[in-house]
Amino acid sequence: MRFVGFREGGRALVGVLTQTSGGAPGAATPAAGVPAVIGLAPVEEFYADLARWRDRAAEALALPGTAARPARELTLVPPVPPAARVLCVGLNYRAHAAETGLPLPKYPAIFGRWTVSLTVDGTPAPVPAGERGLDWEGELGVVVGATLADADEATALAGVLGYAAFNDLSARRAQGRSPQWTLGKNSDHSGPLGPVVTADEVGDPADGLRVVTRMRTRADDGSVVEEVVQDGDTSDMIFSVGQVLSFISQTITLHPGDLLVTGTPAGVGYIRRPARYLVPGDWVEVEIERVGRVATPIVDATGRG
Amino acid sequence: MRFVGFREGGRALVGVLTQTSGGAPGAATPAAGVPAVIGLAPVEEFYADLARWRDRAAEALALPGTAARPARELTLVPPVPPAARVLCVGLNYRAHAAETGLPLPKYPAIFGRWTVSLTVDGTPAPVPAGERGLDWEGELGVVVGATLADADEATALAGVLGYAAFNDLSARRAQGRSPQWTLGKNSDHSGPLGPVVTADEVGDPADGLRVVTRMRTRADDGSVVEEVVQDGDTSDMIFSVGQVLSFISQTITLHPGDLLVTGTPAGVGYIRRPARYLVPGDWVEVEIERVGRVATPIVDATGRG
Repeated sequence: MRFVGFREGGRALVGVLTQTSGGAPGAATPAAGVPAVIGLAPVEEFYADLARWRDRAAEALALPGTAARPARELTLVPPVPPAARVLCVGLNYRAHAAETGLPLPKYPAIFGRWTVSLTVDGTPAPVPAGERGLDWEGELGVVVGATLADADEATALAGVLGYAAFNDLSARRAQGRSPQWTLGKNSDHSGPLGPVVTADEVGDPADGLRVVTRMRTRADDGSVVEEVVQDGDTSDMIFSVGQVLSFISQTITLHPGDLLVTGTPAGVGYIRRPARYLVPGDWVEVEIERVGRVATPIVDATGRG
Repeated sequence: MRFVGFREGGRALVGVLTQTSGGAPGAATPAAGVPAVIGLAPVEEFYADLARWRDRAAEALALPGTAARPARELTLVPPVPPAARVLCVGLNYRAHAAETGLPLPKYPAIFGRWTVSLTVDGTPAPVPAGERGLDWEGELGVVVGATLADADEATALAGVLGYAAFNDLSARRAQGRSPQWTLGKNSDHSGPLGPVVTADEVGDPADGLRVVTRMRTRADDGSVVEEVVQDGDTSDMIFSVGQVLSFISQTITLHPGDLLVTGTPAGVGYIRRPARYLVPGDWVEVEIERVGRVATPIVDATGRG
C-alpha cells in the first residue's frame, strides 16, 4: 500500500493511493486509471492506531466502488504528523564517505530536520538568497510505525511502517559555516518526500535498492539536458536501517510517524570539481527501486524558476 | 504578561498567567492569590494572530472576575506549536567557549531539538539507560513572534514575542559519539521550558540578565545539598539574540512560535574534573533574571527518582 497526506478543512489527513475506476461513459465522473486517494483519518489518529487504519485501507482497496478522489484535485502534504522528528544520517554510504575524504564514522552521525521543511512531489524549492544553489542528496526515507525504546536491530526493522523517496536538498554555504549541519539542512521547502510504500512491498533495504538522482538543466544553446548525478544502492549503507533505528532508540524513544532519512550515495554536487549546484530553472528527481520517485523544480528566493 | 500552555480535550491551548481573586468566604472557589490561568486559544490559533490574542489577554487581565483556573488543576504543556522548530546555539557564551577549549565560533553553531522533548516546570527527566547522568545547561529561551525572512538584527529582535527559562539537559555519551550533537540533545523529556514572559517585561538580553543553574543532590550522610553550578549573564553572549535570529533567517524563514535557545554559560558538568552529572534523585533548576524559573527532578529510565 502507498500512503499520502492531504490537507482539507485546515487539517492534515492520511489516505491510501489507488486509481479511479471510472464512471459510466458520458457521466461526470473521472476517467478510469487516474491516480486517486481514499481518505482514511487525520494524521495523528492514523499514527495512533496504525493497525486499524491499515486494515481499513486494505478493505477499502478491495471493495469495488469505494469513494476515491483524483489525487490532482487534492492538496497533497507529507504523510507524517507536524510534531514528527526527521532524523537524518550523515555519511552513511561507503562511496559517499570516500568522496568526502572524511573517515568512516564509528556511530551514525545524526542531525535533524523539522517537518516544516518537508514537501511533496512537484513542490518548488527556492534557493536561499545567499547560496549559489542547492545541492542534491537522494535518500531512502523510513517512516517509523511503532514505539521504539532501546530496541534491538530486528525489533527496530520490524517496526518500520514503510519507505519513501527523499531528497535532502542542502544549502551548502549555510551548512559549511558551522560543524553543525542543521541550518543548511532546513532551508524552506528543502525536503521533498514521496508517498510512503509499506515495508511488505519493499523488503529489507540491506538487500539492495537502487537509488538514482537525475537532474534536468538548460544548456547554453537552450536545450534541456537530463543526466544521472547519483546512482547508488542501499546495500552500500554503512549502518543499516535496523542498526540506525536501534542506535537512536537507545537515547530517544521513537514514535509512529517519526521519519528517518538514511544518508546519500556518492555523487553530490559540492564535491565535484568544479562544484555543481541546482539553480533556478533546474529540476531534480530521486527515484528508489520498489519505492518510487519524488521530483522538485528549483526556483529563486522569490519563487521564479 | 506570562503565557503558558495547557492540554484540554486532546488539544494544546495557550493561556495567560494570573492569580485567583478568591471567592466569598466558605464558597467552593479557590483561595485568592493562587497562580491561575485564563485560557485564550488553541496554540496554532494563538500564533496565527498574536496581536489579537495579546489584546484579548490584556483585556482579560484588566477585567475583574474573568474566569481563571488554578494552574495546579491544569495539565500544563510548553506554549509552542507541535510543529515549532527549537533552534539551539552551541558555544554562545565566552566563558563557556573558554572552558571547553574550543575556538570561538565565527558563526552561530545551530543544532536542533524537536518539540517532543519539551516539558514544563516539575516534569521529571529520565537518564537514558546508557548514560552516566544528564548534564545541565541553563539557557535563555526566545519565542519568535513574527515571520522573519532575511531579517536584519533590529527587525529580528523586535520580532521576539518573549523569553523563558530553559534547561538544555544533555546526554553527553550520545552527544560525544558524533560531531553532530542532535542525538544527545533530544533525549526523552530533556527540554524543560518555563512560562513565556513578553519581551516588554524583559528588555534586551544584551543588556544583561543573570542566568543561574542550581542543583540539589543527596550527600553520603543523607542530607540534601543545594549548590549553584552555573552563574552567568546574557551580556556574555558571543552572538546576541538579534544576531542569531537574523543569521538563521538568511537560510530558514522563522515563524511565530519557533523557539530559539541561546546557549549556556560556563559551569557545565562534563568539563569538571571529575565530571559531574545529574543522577536519579537529583533536582535541577534554571533561573533567569526578570524571566523566571524552571525546575526538573531527575529520574532513572524507569521513572524512579
